[in-house]
Amino acid sequence: MATIFTRIAAGEIPSFKVAEDENYYAFLDIAPLAEGHTLVIPKKVENDYIFALDPDVYQGLWAFARKVAVALKAAVPCKRVGVAVLGMEVPHTHIHLVPLQSEKDMDFRKEKLSPAPERMKEIADAILAEYEKL
Amino acid sequence: MATIFTRIAAGEIPSFKVAEDENYYAFLDIAPLAEGHTLVIPKKVENDYIFALDPDVYQGLWAFARKVAVALKAAVPCKRVGVAVLGMEVPHTHIHLVPLQSEKDMDFRKEKLSPAPERMKEIADAILAEYEKL
Repeated sequence: MATIFTRIAAGEIPSFKVAEDENYYAFLDIAPLAEGHTLVIPKKVENDYIFALDPDVYQGLWAFARKVAVALKAAVPCKRVGVAVLGMEVPHTHIHLVPLQSEKDMDFRKEKLSPAPERMKEIADAILAEYEKL
Repeated sequence: MATIFTRIAAGEIPSFKVAEDENYYAFLDIAPLAEGHTLVIPKKVENDYIFALDPDVYQGLWAFARKVAVALKAAVPCKRVGVAVLGMEVPHTHIHLVPLQSEKDMDFRKEKLSPAPERMKEIADAILAEYEKL
């Protein structure tokens, strides 16, 4: 059965898309740690453990994540983009990219933000515009 | 000037090595979030922001990290190996690999463990033995 992330990548469930190529998809986390918090996923590979992915899919995922991180940092003011892979919530590999002002921003226990949909759309479009320049 | 991590990779400062190849080095974090918490670094490239690395160095770092994570999971019982890149403490790119029982284990605010050196050596050697089988 398709995971929620497979359905998002296929456009069956709406998302705030920030980047896409043939095999990978990136979209805003709807409960972000910081504005611009993005999830990066393989479109079709549903293996839920990143280190169990086929090595080519794994390497392609990190190559795509690098481009998304560059676009994210260009669109959302931050000191750097942090990375986390925890992956126990949704059974589909996903990389968190989080714009950081300080290390404390990467704290999955803190209360999540809930930006208005209009603001989410604005952020997503800004990142996508940067991604398309790469 | 060489960073502390460059000096560790060069063997000038002792570390609990868990894996090494020509360009990359992995060793136990001395203030681990969990037993087996490992840092993965490029040996000589001191750029402190992972997404600013040369793309080949970046891809090689993730390929090496995958092998280290496989060895780590084989040596240290855990549900999975989590990933974090924060990188504001030491100005030399490093990936955290943390054996997780639950997502709560990836919490950089919690009190760090301080295993005895003998125990650190035992864990490092167990991971290295698994790495050498790959």
